[in-house]
This record gives sequence, C-alpha cells and structure tokens, in this order.
Amino acid sequence: MSLYPFLDRIQTPADLRKFETSQLPEVCKDLREFIIDTLAGVGGHFASNLGVIELTVALHYILNTPVDRLIWDVGHQTYPHKILTGRKDQLTSVRKWGGLSGFPKREESPYDLYNTGHAGTSISQALGEACARDLVNNDYKVVAVIGDASIATGMALEAMNHGGHVKPDMLVILNDNYMSISKNVGSISNYLNNIISSQIYNKWKTLFYNFLKWIPLVGPALQSVAQNMESSMKHFMLRPGGLFEDLGFTYFGPIDGHDVIRVVQMLRNVSKIKGPVLLHVLTQKGKGYKPAEADPIKYHGVTPFNKQDGKMATADSNKIGLSKIVGKTLIDMTEKNPTIAVITPAMIEGSGLRDYQEKFPKNTFDVGIAEQHSVAFAGAMTNGGTIPFMCIYSTFLTRGMDQLVEDVSLMNLPVRFVIDRAGIVGPDGETHQGLSDLGYLAGLPNMDIIVPSSAQDIIDSLHFMENYTDAPIAIRFPKENGDLRELKFETPNPITKGSTRVLSKGEDLLLLSIGFMFPIAKEVSSLLEKDGVKVTLVDLFWLRPFDKATIESLLAGVKKFAILDESYIHAGGSGYLLNEINPIYLSKLIKTFALPPEPIHHGERNQILEHYHLDANSIAKTIKQNF
Amino acid sequence: MSLYPFLDRIQTPADLRKFETSQLPEVCKDLREFIIDTLAGVGGHFASNLGVIELTVALHYILNTPVDRLIWDVGHQTYPHKILTGRKDQLTSVRKWGGLSGFPKREESPYDLYNTGHAGTSISQALGEACARDLVNNDYKVVAVIGDASIATGMALEAMNHGGHVKPDMLVILNDNYMSISKNVGSISNYLNNIISSQIYNKWKTLFYNFLKWIPLVGPALQSVAQNMESSMKHFMLRPGGLFEDLGFTYFGPIDGHDVIRVVQMLRNVSKIKGPVLLHVLTQKGKGYKPAEADPIKYHGVTPFNKQDGKMATADSNKIGLSKIVGKTLIDMTEKNPTIAVITPAMIEGSGLRDYQEKFPKNTFDVGIAEQHSVAFAGAMTNGGTIPFMCIYSTFLTRGMDQLVEDVSLMNLPVRFVIDRAGIVGPDGETHQGLSDLGYLAGLPNMDIIVPSSAQDIIDSLHFMENYTDAPIAIRFPKENGDLRELKFETPNPITKGSTRVLSKGEDLLLLSIGFMFPIAKEVSSLLEKDGVKVTLVDLFWLRPFDKATIESLLAGVKKFAILDESYIHAGGSGYLLNEINPIYLSKLIKTFALPPEPIHHGERNQILEHYHLDANSIAKTIKQNF
Repeated sequence: MSLYPFLDRIQTPADLRKFETSQLPEVCKDLREFIIDTLAGVGGHFASNLGVIELTVALHYILNTPVDRLIWDVGHQTYPHKILTGRKDQLTSVRKWGGLSGFPKREESPYDLYNTGHAGTSISQALGEACARDLVNNDYKVVAVIGDASIATGMALEAMNHGGHVKPDMLVILNDNYMSISKNVGSISNYLNNIISSQIYNKWKTLFYNFLKWIPLVGPALQSVAQNMESSMKHFMLRPGGLFEDLGFTYFGPIDGHDVIRVVQMLRNVSKIKGPVLLHVLTQKGKGYKPAEADPIKYHGVTPFNKQDGKMATADSNKIGLSKIVGKTLIDMTEKNPTIAVITPAMIEGSGLRDYQEKFPKNTFDVGIAEQHSVAFAGAMTNGGTIPFMCIYSTFLTRGMDQLVEDVSLMNLPVRFVIDRAGIVGPDGETHQGLSDLGYLAGLPNMDIIVPSSAQDIIDSLHFMENYTDAPIAIRFPKENGDLRELKFETPNPITKGSTRVLSKGEDLLLLSIGFMFPIAKEVSSLLEKDGVKVTLVDLFWLRPFDKATIESLLAGVKKFAILDESYIHAGGSGYLLNEINPIYLSKLIKTFALPPEPIHHGERNQILEHYHLDANSIAKTIKQNF
Repeated sequence: MSLYPFLDRIQTPADLRKFETSQLPEVCKDLREFIIDTLAGVGGHFASNLGVIELTVALHYILNTPVDRLIWDVGHQTYPHKILTGRKDQLTSVRKWGGLSGFPKREESPYDLYNTGHAGTSISQALGEACARDLVNNDYKVVAVIGDASIATGMALEAMNHGGHVKPDMLVILNDNYMSISKNVGSISNYLNNIISSQIYNKWKTLFYNFLKWIPLVGPALQSVAQNMESSMKHFMLRPGGLFEDLGFTYFGPIDGHDVIRVVQMLRNVSKIKGPVLLHVLTQKGKGYKPAEADPIKYHGVTPFNKQDGKMATADSNKIGLSKIVGKTLIDMTEKNPTIAVITPAMIEGSGLRDYQEKFPKNTFDVGIAEQHSVAFAGAMTNGGTIPFMCIYSTFLTRGMDQLVEDVSLMNLPVRFVIDRAGIVGPDGETHQGLSDLGYLAGLPNMDIIVPSSAQDIIDSLHFMENYTDAPIAIRFPKENGDLRELKFETPNPITKGSTRVLSKGEDLLLLSIGFMFPIAKEVSSLLEKDGVKVTLVDLFWLRPFDKATIESLLAGVKKFAILDESYIHAGGSGYLLNEINPIYLSKLIKTFALPPEPIHHGERNQILEHYHLDANSIAKTIKQNF
C-alpha cells in the first residue's frame, strides 16, 4: 500500500478538485508526510512549507488555477504548491543544479506566475494582474499570499495604498505565522499580535454585547444612539483589521489556517465579495513536525536530517560562516566602543548577529524588511554621533539603492556597509544572486569599496572602517566559511587606504582579481606558470579608490591582462576599472571573466562557475590561447 | 519705512524667538509678502512655500534649532526656513548656478540637516537621529515635516512601522494640503480626506457626547460599561488618526496650519509627550496669493510673474516639452490600441500625461509616490494582456531598482520604460540629476535600451516599443523641448533593432555619442573638422544591443575614439561599451566624456556642462590635443 494514498491521486489541481471537502484533511496529511519524508533526505526550505499545507490545498481546491491567478510572496513556501501542480516526483532535486527551484519559477510550470525571492512583491503583482484583467475585460480571480513580515515592507504597503484606492476585485491572504511574532519586528507586527491575542476584538465584542442587552431598558433617544453606534462599531471594533480597512481593503479573520475545511469555506465566501479583500489566516511554521514546531528558525532551511529526532549533520566546528565572523568582530569592537550601531533589515540570523543582539540589544537595530528605510536610517545615525554598520545581503541592498544615492552617497555620510552573500549565492538561485553590488556602488558619487578576499580581511576591514569617515565605505563578501584556527580576532592587521596586493611578478600576464575570486586566481596563476606563462598576480583589495599607480606600472610591464570579477559583467567592478585605467594599456585586456547578463540559476557555486567557464581550468585555458 | 518690518529683525531663529507669540502673525505676513515679491522677480518653487509659512515660523519659534533637529521631507518647501535661518538676502539666487539650492543643503547652513529631493525620507532620518541620540545619551528634540503624498510612500511607512515599534521621542508633522487631495491618489489620501471632512471625527464626537449625557440616568452596570467604552472610544473614535495609532504613533489633529498661534500652542503641548507623535496639520498650497490658491498646480513652480495678476511669460507656442510629446504620442497609440496602459508614480503633470489621463482615465494608472510598487505592477500588467508604458523620471526610477531587477528583468517581462529627466536636470540640482540610469539599466540581465537623440526619435521609439516583446525596453531623454513644426506624429519613422547611425566618415576620430549629447557631438565634429581632424560621427541610438559590427568596423578605420555620455562616468553607458568592444581597439580610446563621480549641483545645463568641460569647445580642445 502506498505511503501517500490520497496524494498519489493528484497530478494536477484538477485531480484535487475531485475530492470531497471532507477528504481534504487526508490530502493534507499525505502532503505533510511527503514533504517531511522527502526533505529529511535532501534538505531545503522546511518550516515555512509545513505551515502552508492546508492553505495551499484549500487555494488550489477553490480556485481554478492556473486560469485564476495565484501569486506567492517570497516563494520559499511553495513546495506544497509545486507538489500539487505536477512536480511531486522532482522534489528530491529541489535547489540542486538543473533541479527544481526552491522558489516559483515560470520556466517550470504555468502554475508559477512570477519568479520570486524578495519580500512584498505579491500585492503589486496581484494588483497589476487585476487591473490588466479589468482593462482588457477578462474574467478570473486574483489571489496573493503574503506573510506577516512581508506585508510590512514598503512596497506591499504602497500596493495596498494603490489597491485600496482603485478597488479591483482581488484577494490578499495574510499568512500570519503567529509563532514567529516574537522574532518579527515593527508596529504592524505588534498590531497583528494584538488582533490575535484578541485584546481588541474580544474586549469590544464583550463590551458591545453587554451594552446591547441594556438597550430595551432605556429610552428611545439612547436606542437611536446605540443603533448608530452599532453600525460604526461594526466598522471600528468588530472588524479587528481596521488598519487594513483604513487602507481600503475589506478585512476578514483571523481564522485557523490549519483547519482546511474552514479555510475552504472562508475562501468560498470571500471570493464572492467585490473589491479588494484581505483574509487573515493564522498558521504555524513547522506545523506537524515537532522539532520544527519547537524551533522554526533552526528548521527554516534544513540539510538532510533524521526524521525520528530531527537531527541534522553537524558541521566542522572550526568552520565558521563569514557572517558569524562579522558578528563576532562587531561584538569585539562594540565592547570597546559603545557608539557602534548595527543595523539589519530583518536578517539577525542570516547576518550572524544573534549573539551580537543578545549582548548589545540597544546597539542592534532590526528595522524589519525595510531596506529603503534602513539605509536612510543608517545615514541619519551618522549625524547623531554613532558609527552605523549596515549589515545586508547584496541582493537586498538593491532595494535601498535610491537611499544609497540620495540619503548617503550625495551627502557623503560615512555609513559602513557590510555586504553579505555577494557573488554567486548558490542554491537560492537567480533572485538571490549578489552579482550587481560592485557596479552600483562604483557608480556612486561618494563610495569607497574594499573587496576582501579572505575571512581575516573581513575582520581587518571592519576594524579599519570603524574610524573611517572619508566617505561611506562598503565591504562585500560571499556566503563562505572561515577557519577559526587561522583567524586573528584580537590582533587585526592594519589597512592602508587604496593599497593593493601584488602576490607575484611575471612579465606575461597581469591577473587582476576582485575579492573572493582570489583563490581561483591563485589556481589560474599556478596552472599558467606550469604552462610557461609568467604571471603578475594581484589581489585588488581596494576597488575604490584603487591603487592606480601600482596597477598602471604593472600594466606597463606585462603583455596582457585579465580581470576576474564575480559579478554580472556589466554590473561589476570592471566597467569602473576600464574607465579609470589609462587607455594606453587597455588593448592588453584579454577579457573580464565575469557572469554573463542573464539569470544565473540555482546550484552549487562551483557548478555555476564551471558552467560559465569561470573555474580555474577554464580561465587558464582561455588565457593560454592568448600566448 | 521697510516693506517687511518684522522680518527685517530676524537674522537667525534666535531673533524670531524674541517676539511675543501674539506678534507671530505679523512675522508671517512679512514672510509671505517677501516670498511673493522675491519669487515674482526670480521664479522658483512657490505654492508649497506659501503653504508652510505659519508652520515654519511656529517650528523655529518653539524648537531650539539647530540643536533640535528639524528635518524636511522633499524640501522644495524650505524657502521660509531658509529666510529665517540667515539666507533672506540670497533668495534671489535660488536654483541658479552658484546660488541657493531650491532644497535644503548642508553646505549652505547648519540648519539644513539633509540634502533632500526625493519623497518620504524624513521619518527615517528623524528616527535615525532619535535612535542615535538615545544611544549616545544626548538630549534634543527631533521633528520631521512630511506631506500627505510623501507619507504614503513605502519608505515612510517602513519608517513608521519601525518607529512605532522602538518608540523614541520624536514628532512627525503631517503637512496635509487638503486643497490638493483631488490630485493625490491612494487609500491613505482617501483616509486623510475622511478625517478632514470630519465624517468620522465629528460624527463620533456627537454620538459620544449624546451618549454621555444619558449615563447618570441609567444603572451602574451600564455606567461601568460606558466608562470602559469611553477610554477605548478615546482611542478608537475621538482619535481620528487610528491608522497612525495602529502604527504606534500618538495622533493629534487635525489643526489649522495657518493659525500660527494655534500651531505654536499645539507644538508646545505635543513636545511634552513621550514616544513617537504625529501631528496632523492642514495647510493650503499657495495660501495668501489668490492666483496660486486658485491653481496650486500651475503655481507649484513659477517663472518670474506679474505680482498683480500672477501672469507668467508665455513660451514659444511651437516649443513643446519632450514629456508632452510622449503624452501626445501615447494618446495617438492608445486611440488605436486600447490595451495600452500608462503608469506614473504621482507624476501626471511632470510626465506630460494630463491630456492622456483626461482622454483615457481607465488606461491611466497613477499609483502615487510608489516607485517600487509601480515597477512590479507594470511587470504584472504584461502578464495580463496589456502593454504597460512606465513613465518615470530617471532620478525616481532608482527607487524601483530592485523591482527592475527582480520583478521585470530576471523574468524578461516586456515593460516599456519611458525615462524622463535623464542627464543633467538643471535647477533642481544634485538630488534630481538623472546621471545613473544608463549604468543601472545596462547592468541588468535583460534590458534593451534605446538612446534617442531628438524629439522625433522619441515619437518613433514609442511606436516601435508598442509591439516590442523581446525584452523589457527603455528609452531615456532629458528635460528638453521639441519643435512642433518639425515633428511627424502621424508618420513615425521605422526603427531597426540594434542599428546605429553613422553621420560622417573620417579617418582620425570616431566620436561615439550617446543620446542627447548628439547636438554637442555635431558641434565638436564641426570644430574638429575645421582644425583638420577627420571625424566619423556616430549617434549610437541603440545602447543595448548596440551595433557591434558597425562600431568595430569603424574603430578599425580610425586612429582614436571618444565616448560622449551625459551620465556619471561610472554609472553611464561607457562601462558597458568598454566591456563589449573588442579590446584590440580599446587603446584608441581618448576618454569617456562624462560627469565625474561627485554631486552635480544646480544651475543651467549649459553652465554645468561648461564647468565640467563638457561643452563642445572644451571637448574639441581635449580631443585635439591627441592629434
């Protein structure tokens, strides 16, 4: 007998719709077991997917997908959706090179409408679909599913502000994971918490009904007042989602998101309502798998684990993520200088700041998923006598681009940017690649840029940045590890502004390596030396200002040069360098080795580098052809 | 006798504070007269400044500026502030090369804390100042002044979400110009409108007091209920700003922003309240000058005008702004194809779309100051069978950068970007320069870019873009005029993808002109030819894809080449070109003529070009030195 008898009968959502509503709990049970069993073997996003099983089943049951438009925010919670839309057997390949994406992907399925990854996009997209539908007189439903952290992002609020004004028929499902509220920040989160804990709703309900029973006893004037009040109270009090109603949405909820039959009924009802509707659904991350329910943060993304006890393989204890090295260094620095402030847009965990926050809660500013605000906020903190370190993933910094220009660079405010997950990010894929930051940063009026090439470089750079006020300054580094046995936290190396590193001298080739391409550059250099090509190997270290005198004198002494840059070719550091280097040397350029201008899909970094001929062997081979 | 006896006594805010509160109306009267008299002579931002006279006087009267932090959003309403802070005599130079900026400017005065220009930054900055103050145990007040359109931007809402959570002492003044509500869009605008029209406030106030008078007449149980209700009603009903209270701010208002004594009293009161406070102040654009009160849009920014009747000089009726040419062309196109949608983030007027909106209200999507949302919304509209043209200023598109990457480019959604105010914008200065768009756009995975060099090119390009679905596509053009007598709206010229324009052939120099640098390039070419330098003049027209074959064959035939690009040098088109052109030609590069990486201040375009040696004479001279 099959392990998942109900799930086995579903190839597409049309099969799901053949079930009686009363059978849906069985479908959900199978779906949950299947996900636990599969991800125990291969890993992937976990807790968030367990949280939306009933919601996903109910949505595909009620909606006529893919004609009706089902749009997921962020998208790491779409494994149940993928399973129900014909991709069950491919789930073992998730996040692997050539396998299923961990996010919705248009190339995979007509049920995936948008390739997502960044938070807060779904309401804009749903509104766009709804407005387009109405403009060309089409007829389908549009539904966005958005989390409680995502709905507080600026663009989601902008979309609600617009949607509540134009009022097309559309449904926003607020997937509110009340288990994680203590981790979520912001007044909207507090507000949702209030709704859930019923402080507003139940209090008023009780008060109102207490009041109503007195009405027959009092005179007609008060009765009239009370009736007027009733209608307004419905609006203000019996509707706990006044915030959303103020934004022009009709609010329903909160309802239990794990009661699939209730969700189905509610979706049936609200789908008949005209105009924009927000349905508030409460779900629990990790639902149905005890270890994940107990620690949803740990089980947000998993490596293969033992199903019985939830244990994941332990890593080499000497290896420590670069993010954590940043966190540890900032602790060391703040112990000596309490005017340091650390800012993160909702990435305490990812940016290795958990220990920092525990030790220095007052110096920690988790602003929520609010990159725009975070950058301007950091700029202002420089004016108030503090030393702000803005810790952010490369891919998310793009959201604060305008603030980087207007609210930091143009005023030359010395914000210290610590840019994590730069370069190829691997399994998260195209929407998370950090391949543009160097190009954007180098394009700004005021912005100095260090490109560390090792974990120790990061420690040294952070110490250097503390007292650096010439300009805003950024470091960028990838999702890699350092080795604790090799790191000097206590005795950082001094840094000289604009000074590059020349590792070897050879008269054939200048190999100009930017950042963490350096280990590959070293390998390329060895391979070429073996082949008789004499290499001048340079670890640039400073991109801006760069060591023009040194680089140009080296260029004068070689036959050819090449640039290694883990960026999109047209959004990296090379455009800056090619405009800065004296043109007389430019015809010596073999090429910039970088990523092409196309979406870079998910997979391991080395697989991606090989695919694009950016591994040491391929690079050495290409260069060799020029000698 | 002086025309402005009270104003004459004020050199700094300290002088203002010597007046009795009862004298402030006289100060305001002088200030208003002075602004009207001065701007009648020199032009500048007008209606918004007349609207904040009383508010500005009250703020500097109550606050201890510049120790207390007064932060202006957008900043074109800071003329009264500049006058009160020692810059009265310089106002005649406003927006002129070397003169006062039309926006706050740190270089001008310690009273100007941030150089602003983009909307919605002030709450982030006030919050940053407040959090920094509290971290280093400082003691001063922090006040942000933000308009009703700006407060609905994503970043302002993000800042409120954060501020309402951390709750430092700070005051946000919502400068709500209720005269312009019909022009402002969005549910927050509707919400404010409701407050103002008192539908909520007065209704509930009446109901509540009607109710209260019955209380002594009824029993103790109802009394208790009523008292409970009272406290909650205060929160929910007597406070009309429930939306802001939900966001964690204590709300006060609305109050009349032109009653300076009332505003002073209110500021005194609210400045004693702990935590974040929002004070809702109603003002009128153009207040006190009849023609501006009657048409605040027309008098938003003025050229010199006759004080008696408000008449401004009429322009040459054959000259028409490039924005209006876009609007007219889109009308022509939508008449034939009703699936065209035009999107603007609150720039109907500036983007020349007034007539379009009147003719095609259903096809017009004014999303508010919501650039992030607007770009993702446009992406989604491509999925719904419509043809979205996203009309946006270059400087504001940066705010949608992340959405451009994630929600358009990576999915290759064919949004048509119409980028206005590209290049040097002139009098608006550094925060409005459109000098980065080409660099950002050329860095994206999927994005085709046309760089028109004439008004007719824009018409032709828009028609071409209608049916272009290979990729998202952008055109960019400056704030310039076209001549109606020369334009063919009815018979646009066909365009071939990726085809460049070779205007002349000469063996010395290839002059590669990007976009509206072309008229200057022609002049350079003439000057050089006179000097005996034979020029191959190219108007690139397509930046991406560019006409590689043609350009490289031309490069093979010349001694030198130069690029003309009205961009920051490291954020323009040249980085892209230098990485695309075969390196064997690169040592022929003389240089990229572009703006340096520094803030480009306000002034006329030709003054700025001359200052940076980007006028035809300077460029020709530099090039000549290479021959």
